[in-house]
Amino acid sequence: MSNTKPENTRKTDYKINSIFVNRWSPRSMTGEEISDDDLMSLFEAARWSPSSFNNQPWRFIYSKRTGSEWSKFLDLLNEGNRIWAKEAGVLVVIISRKNFEYNEKPSITHQFDAGAAWKNLALEASIRGIVAHGMQ
Amino acid sequence: MSNTKPENTRKTDYKINSIFVNRWSPRSMTGEEISDDDLMSLFEAARWSPSSFNNQPWRFIYSKRTGSEWSKFLDLLNEGNRIWAKEAGVLVVIISRKNFEYNEKPSITHQFDAGAAWKNLALEASIRGIVAHGMQ
Repeated sequence: MSNTKPENTRKTDYKINSIFVNRWSPRSMTGEEISDDDLMSLFEAARWSPSSFNNQPWRFIYSKRTGSEWSKFLDLLNEGNRIWAKEAGVLVVIISRKNFEYNEKPSITHQFDAGAAWKNLALEASIRGIVAHGMQ
Repeated sequence: MSNTKPENTRKTDYKINSIFVNRWSPRSMTGEEISDDDLMSLFEAARWSPSSFNNQPWRFIYSKRTGSEWSKFLDLLNEGNRIWAKEAGVLVVIISRKNFEYNEKPSITHQFDAGAAWKNLALEASIRGIVAHGMQ
């Protein structure tokens, strides 16, 4: 699950923190198990993301590769992604709640907010040397 | 534009990098001008965000408080936000392209991807001691 950091070859036009440059989306995964500590810290990072009315509309559904539901998660992927994603330590489905919890009215930012939360997760992963690769 | 870092009072359930904990959404702004260097670095951080097919659907439209379009940007806000946002150094409207550029087919993740890019922007700002506060 450890990645080779590409920072030596990536140049930015303006100076930014290296965490944004070091994060990338490799397709080469080791199949190494992810610890609960690591996994919960990824979700914790996501949880600290801001959202409209602090509604926190994101939901994460996951299976580790050792889990009983693993094959169901793999089946959600298209063939092109399944080839490399089957070597992941965990697969996570991200969904978001369309209505605000406090009044059930539609939120226009639930997808935007979920994307922001996922970015926290991906950056926390990168900081830990864990590969995170988004798929639609 | 500098913020008081709240890290001493914010506790996480699982260990995460302090950049996620230190980022918050204050409503107290100084009206201090933002430099072009700072502003371009915020957009640069956003640019390094991943997106479906690397479509980078996010677009940022901005006005500094000293800009000729400033009042138009302020007028986009509701009264509750305008009260504090009028002291911001810059207002940025985030929009996203609904169709992929390469084939003009609809993207189901353009909002999600824009949210992820905005999160990079907000974190880069926080790292620089610049307040960034999202509004819908």
